[in-house]
Amino acid sequence: MIRVTLTTICGTDLHIVRGEYPVAPGLVIGHEPVGVIEELGEGVTGYQIGERVLVGAITPCGQCRACLSGHASQCGHGAAYEALGGWRFGNTINGAQAEYLRVPYAQANLAKIPDELTDEQVVLLADIASTGFGGAEAAKIRIGDSVVVFAQGPIGLCATAGAKLMGASLIIGVDGDEHRLAMSKRMGADVTLDYREVDVVAEVKRLTGGGADVAIEALGTQQTFESSLRSLRPAGTLSSLGVYSGKLQIPYEAFAAGIGDYRIVTTLCPGGKERLRRLMEVVRHGRVDLTPLLTHRFKLDNISDAYKLFGERSDGVLKVAIQP
Amino acid sequence: MIRVTLTTICGTDLHIVRGEYPVAPGLVIGHEPVGVIEELGEGVTGYQIGERVLVGAITPCGQCRACLSGHASQCGHGAAYEALGGWRFGNTINGAQAEYLRVPYAQANLAKIPDELTDEQVVLLADIASTGFGGAEAAKIRIGDSVVVFAQGPIGLCATAGAKLMGASLIIGVDGDEHRLAMSKRMGADVTLDYREVDVVAEVKRLTGGGADVAIEALGTQQTFESSLRSLRPAGTLSSLGVYSGKLQIPYEAFAAGIGDYRIVTTLCPGGKERLRRLMEVVRHGRVDLTPLLTHRFKLDNISDAYKLFGERSDGVLKVAIQP
Amino acid sequence: MIRVTLTTICGTDLHIVRGEYPVAPGLVIGHEPVGVIEELGEGVTGYQIGERVLVGAITPCGQCRACLSGHASQCGHGAAYEALGGWRFGNTINGAQAEYLRVPYAQANLAKIPDELTDEQVVLLADIASTGFGGAEAAKIRIGDSVVVFAQGPIGLCATAGAKLMGASLIIGVDGDEHRLAMSKRMGADVTLDYREVDVVAEVKRLTGGGADVAIEALGTQQTFESSLRSLRPAGTLSSLGVYSGKLQIPYEAFAAGIGDYRIVTTLCPGGKERLRRLMEVVRHGRVDLTPLLTHRFKLDNISDAYKLFGERSDGVLKVAIQP
Amino acid sequence: MIRVTLTTICGTDLHIVRGEYPVAPGLVIGHEPVGVIEELGEGVTGYQIGERVLVGAITPCGQCRACLSGHASQCGHGAAYEALGGWRFGNTINGAQAEYLRVPYAQANLAKIPDELTDEQVVLLADIASTGFGGAEAAKIRIGDSVVVFAQGPIGLCATAGAKLMGASLIIGVDGDEHRLAMSKRMGADVTLDYREVDVVAEVKRLTGGGADVAIEALGTQQTFESSLRSLRPAGTLSSLGVYSGKLQIPYEAFAAGIGDYRIVTTLCPGGKERLRRLMEVVRHGRVDLTPLLTHRFKLDNISDAYKLFGERSDGVLKVAIQP
Repeated sequence: MIRVTLTTICGTDLHIVRGEYPVAPGLVIGHEPVGVIEELGEGVTGYQIGERVLVGAITPCGQCRACLSGHASQCGHGAAYEALGGWRFGNTINGAQAEYLRVPYAQANLAKIPDELTDEQVVLLADIASTGFGGAEAAKIRIGDSVVVFAQGPIGLCATAGAKLMGASLIIGVDGDEHRLAMSKRMGADVTLDYREVDVVAEVKRLTGGGADVAIEALGTQQTFESSLRSLRPAGTLSSLGVYSGKLQIPYEAFAAGIGDYRIVTTLCPGGKERLRRLMEVVRHGRVDLTPLLTHRFKLDNISDAYKLFGERSDGVLKVAIQP
Repeated sequence: MIRVTLTTICGTDLHIVRGEYPVAPGLVIGHEPVGVIEELGEGVTGYQIGERVLVGAITPCGQCRACLSGHASQCGHGAAYEALGGWRFGNTINGAQAEYLRVPYAQANLAKIPDELTDEQVVLLADIASTGFGGAEAAKIRIGDSVVVFAQGPIGLCATAGAKLMGASLIIGVDGDEHRLAMSKRMGADVTLDYREVDVVAEVKRLTGGGADVAIEALGTQQTFESSLRSLRPAGTLSSLGVYSGKLQIPYEAFAAGIGDYRIVTTLCPGGKERLRRLMEVVRHGRVDLTPLLTHRFKLDNISDAYKLFGERSDGVLKVAIQP
Repeated sequence: MIRVTLTTICGTDLHIVRGEYPVAPGLVIGHEPVGVIEELGEGVTGYQIGERVLVGAITPCGQCRACLSGHASQCGHGAAYEALGGWRFGNTINGAQAEYLRVPYAQANLAKIPDELTDEQVVLLADIASTGFGGAEAAKIRIGDSVVVFAQGPIGLCATAGAKLMGASLIIGVDGDEHRLAMSKRMGADVTLDYREVDVVAEVKRLTGGGADVAIEALGTQQTFESSLRSLRPAGTLSSLGVYSGKLQIPYEAFAAGIGDYRIVTTLCPGGKERLRRLMEVVRHGRVDLTPLLTHRFKLDNISDAYKLFGERSDGVLKVAIQP
Repeated sequence: MIRVTLTTICGTDLHIVRGEYPVAPGLVIGHEPVGVIEELGEGVTGYQIGERVLVGAITPCGQCRACLSGHASQCGHGAAYEALGGWRFGNTINGAQAEYLRVPYAQANLAKIPDELTDEQVVLLADIASTGFGGAEAAKIRIGDSVVVFAQGPIGLCATAGAKLMGASLIIGVDGDEHRLAMSKRMGADVTLDYREVDVVAEVKRLTGGGADVAIEALGTQQTFESSLRSLRPAGTLSSLGVYSGKLQIPYEAFAAGIGDYRIVTTLCPGGKERLRRLMEVVRHGRVDLTPLLTHRFKLDNISDAYKLFGERSDGVLKVAIQP
């Protein structure tokens, strides 16, 4: 059990609130908690009441078939695999937009926060950084790769930062919002493209001399998925992070009819305390600073204002800090 | 320049003959040659006139960006990448259904045949075995994986054999043709499913306790692609070998809306003399025997009969040996 | 808590009995248990009293830094890494040569045995098969590789079987004992070499045309380690399974002075219930049969006779089945 | 044939000059050339006389067993593998410390230099950057890893830069020379340790909470090799770049007696035009700047002064630019 000291709102929470994604009824939602240990379950060792901890959006058990196979996000709760099974907070159990939070499988999921890091420096690691970096990692970006990232919302911006962390030489950020394109450069993009103004696929091919090595999709629409594939050189990798609804089509000619040695990989936010420890090390040593993405701050009591702002994407909002 | 001693017909050749796949006009087609060296270009070293060689369907240059990046099937002819660029025989230059054949980039593509192997033992390595095994390899099959292979034509049968070679524990072959299902067992399937009789996806889930680790698609239709994806456990891998035409759709719910950690990988036949050397070693040491797939034999002069039989899929034909 | 129904003796147990490897004093030793669930701890779900289970030599927690990083054999007991920390039975807690056994982290470590498999069919999966196959896996053996395995004791024989499972084309087993060389062929070796009779390194180079792709060391001596390295082609992989004592030297010229692109990888038995489930699937589908390695059978009451036989390596003993 | 416009001296050249490494007698040495195409061999396509090119220290053929297996540094010249076979310049053929240079396998090895890059910006990519980054790549450094690099000479400094490029969180540079330790920070080290002042292994363990994920050895001595291994956590990776002479010993207890899941990987400079193109992209997009390592400049006519300075390591020399 932790006392929540900082949390935030995710695009997924919006979908839930709008009834577009069904979760267990009556739940507190939110899945990005920073807090202080208030109570420790029997058998949890190595922690003390009062320690500051970060908990991931995904809370794997560590002991099921999926977890023991390295696919903890599809955690089967001690048994086999369950699609998205590692995502519990605000989905199948009470979540983080609250004063107190019960953390399942605490031994595997409480990541101690180093003293020199503030809550704001780490809160975005719980979901968007783990997801965005995960998209870069799943693509197996290598030193010298050219990478294009479609959509520069919070997840896409973290994918851009992840591509930079992994040694991509040329990073192209794509969006249609000026604030986000400006932030894209700040997070590591060398070039940004506004899809309202240029033919993005043609421009990516021109800049990369025939197609990018890697394209990361960070929105979840047919159009961005398709443009990602079209932007690749033969044998390129499409790393998809978006949540799609309805039909998703692969343009067969851009897919070289199936024999172009393309790879399409998908990633749900990696979780567990070790993942978070690593990400906090990245921040602690100054490799990346995500605090510019926290554009607004609210008290938990005023969370409905925060939802309104975030839902309307007004005032250049990227992520909101919510303090109980 | 080699004198062809044995070749065969591929499904792709049928597509070309029927005008469904456009190649350079006036070409001799065929891309699976076994032969004897008749003449050696200047600068080709380590070979002698009269040696028996196997040449792959894909003849990479070894010296372009694609080749030097490990993607030789998308060979760019000395320069960058070209989609399917490594496929030259019967596509952009004269092919193997002939008495003589000029082999491009001979230094990289002439694979000497060990004395103890016959032409018939190696001819199917040039394309279908390299492709089928390649599908298993691209899926990164591990010891103990459960694998389902959709379609048990020549490529699918080789994918089945490839899955067995890599240590899959349970291999399920799917087709609607009795001869092919029988051959599937011979090539390594533990269980075969006739899609005319059972709900394949449901049966795969039952047999694997929730979904296969790997599904290999070896036909190139929307239905097999989709069933492949539906047969997987979360975080499973779909390895696609088929050549698709028209639209290809990803069923978004089977894709866990994009966040199920699924991977889709595609493979064009790996080529080059080292690939063929390895495959011949596999045959030489008795790991696999592909000669049962050579169901019929024709002289080159009677190749039109062979095309007729192969095109009609009559008489349980799988592959035909064509002897000049 | 399980009631042990079958176990065996490992070479490590001999070292312990002889005082060559120090463990916590007063312990019951043995780490290869098959049994029946007698009692279930609180919080362990999905199991029932009376179910037959296999438990691995290594019993990871699933929730520490090492486990969450995929290095469960170096399990840190909820915290970070601990060298060999996943090995608990007969090392830091009571082991399997007993009537009853308490299994730590039961949720992660009880692997149900399919009804169609006998205790004898699975008991060797707990350690030697997981280790031997693990050596093949760590070497990343590919279809068509040539592999030499130094020493054909129980572990080496399983490494041989593992190389075959992964699609090696040529497998060479090396030992100086006739029984073991004969068993080597049965487990998958194409060629066996008796080091008392031939210059093994020279012969491996001859058979492989310049050096093996992979060498597996399965004894733990300077000589086998060195011969393994000397048997490789440039850029080959030495996969080491042995437990070394004292000094271990790398012959610098066989190492190409450090710039031959060689890899040396080491493996401690992979554990956890998912690993065991996979290995049991391999047995269940007839991919491998390890029962020929169980050369002798004893009652637990006569275990000192078993230790005597096993210690003296008399009567062609490989592994002994011990039944409480 | 290229007209050399810039080259440099490597530590290997010193060894050759001192007679410590035997090369073909009478050779021009040096293997790091930048130049202008003066003449093109028959069959080389896509290039024009007068183009600026960078050529790697390693010049693979692209068409032998080693090259086609992804081990181009051990190139077998069209045939199989040859240890260090890809290193030709100043070893088996005339090298780069000359006015003109014949480039073998030009199609695979001439990398065009983008207009915006100067000779000085790219000359160090030919060997030390490709090697140093290669050490980081071979270690498979992941986002958040802790990395220690032993020795901060030119290669070690590039390994430091490579670790940073790949997303290491904490990078520790070790040396005993103040200039080099200062440069280490400039190339990406967070912490530097002077082995004359601290117990490096103990300090690395303290800083990393138990041992580094990766240690890179960049000198080639028993001591640095051993300290690298001792600095690792269990299941860590030692990436070795040094050229060793004489005996090399693995301290068995730091190796956890062989069962600590440690990996030791070695790397010879990756070559070929695609490698160089990628590295030039890294420089072109400002990811790394190696020009600070070019501490001194000489005319080719005065190369003996350059050798003297470089050999004595005087005046804080790291690399010298040699201009014909």
